[in-house]
Amino acid sequence: MARELAVTERTRVHRHPERAQTGRAALHAVLDEGLIAHVGFVRDGAPVVLPVAYGRDADTVYLHGSTGSRAFRALAGGAPLSLAVTLLDGLVLARSATHSSMNYRSAVVFGRGEEVTGEGAKRDALRVVTEHLAPGRWAEVRPVTRKELAGVLVLAVALDEASVKVRTGPPHDDPEDLGLPIWSGVLPLSLATARPVPDPTLAPGVPVPHSVSTWVAGPGAPLGGGGR
Amino acid sequence: MARELAVTERTRVHRHPERAQTGRAALHAVLDEGLIAHVGFVRDGAPVVLPVAYGRDADTVYLHGSTGSRAFRALAGGAPLSLAVTLLDGLVLARSATHSSMNYRSAVVFGRGEEVTGEGAKRDALRVVTEHLAPGRWAEVRPVTRKELAGVLVLAVALDEASVKVRTGPPHDDPEDLGLPIWSGVLPLSLATARPVPDPTLAPGVPVPHSVSTWVAGPGAPLGGGGR
Repeated sequence: MARELAVTERTRVHRHPERAQTGRAALHAVLDEGLIAHVGFVRDGAPVVLPVAYGRDADTVYLHGSTGSRAFRALAGGAPLSLAVTLLDGLVLARSATHSSMNYRSAVVFGRGEEVTGEGAKRDALRVVTEHLAPGRWAEVRPVTRKELAGVLVLAVALDEASVKVRTGPPHDDPEDLGLPIWSGVLPLSLATARPVPDPTLAPGVPVPHSVSTWVAGPGAPLGGGGR
Repeated sequence: MARELAVTERTRVHRHPERAQTGRAALHAVLDEGLIAHVGFVRDGAPVVLPVAYGRDADTVYLHGSTGSRAFRALAGGAPLSLAVTLLDGLVLARSATHSSMNYRSAVVFGRGEEVTGEGAKRDALRVVTEHLAPGRWAEVRPVTRKELAGVLVLAVALDEASVKVRTGPPHDDPEDLGLPIWSGVLPLSLATARPVPDPTLAPGVPVPHSVSTWVAGPGAPLGGGGR
């Protein structure tokens, strides 16, 4: 797979082309840091957007849902889809409303879902999604059963066509506005964790595992600190 | 407008119906707390999902983009759209991967965009979006000009058809798994702010305004604290 994303008619960034990133590494970085994807598909001629969990392995994104889900059954049938992951980094507050904006990193993928079949492949895909949300968790949890696998519908989406946009930095006010006595700048935003809440049924003495205690920013980072 | 959301074929919650909320107040609450919406529409027969800023006034959501945006021009033509706002409240870590989940509040709207025309109406809509992101900001910034208004495409989406799903609380493990020595619980997640970063061109002595200092959780809340 080429290290650069191919630019197609629908991935070309027309608005603010300076925000476009064409490296596959940039795509991977956004997908790996995000926790929720918004998946769009067409049902009865109209678009539907739903939030889903996901995980990435190399150049494939995996989604999983119930075999009873209308949305997942439609997607498993090969319907075209679009999948967006957006990381919000801050509010950009310019001296004018028009130049106010957000700092963000976003990825938009175009493709189709291909149903993953076979117990081994489905198990691998669930591992990818589980590890994406909490690295190390797969080795901690009770192994997935054959019955559970049978009830899960897993989709693979190839990262063949995608665009990445990134905005960083301060506002860009009009030159004639720079002298106005109006505060402008960025209010940084990030995802933060709080102290883990044990399940009420948890037996006393079961420690917070590695996957949770290191979630924030890698080993050594304090829980309740900054974003991931 | 009725206080309850009408349940239609596409807003009926089939999976986990216990998570459905049918009150219009629940829809408003999700939309008001979110900062980014993911809008899906159909272009050349395939879905496109894009992140956008928005704001709500009564039972209308406003979006704005450039008059040069392909996406906004398509939406202004009355193409059907779906708009999702998702608030992530935590990772739900069960003793099994299959029962692991997320705590979230999500709204999915179905409708069409109607272009807002007229200077007054467009200005009002920009105010709604600006105030949504930072309440009080509209009164602080330099007034929007007629030229700026002419370059902005504003869409109104009526909240006629929408569904809201909410998951809260601990994991729901299988009864036979409750005795396993595996930690289970919730890792809370929220959006956090950091100290505002002034624009490098800002003149010395311009104070951080009310819209920024009170952003976090209302008057008196410390900046850099918890989520909104």
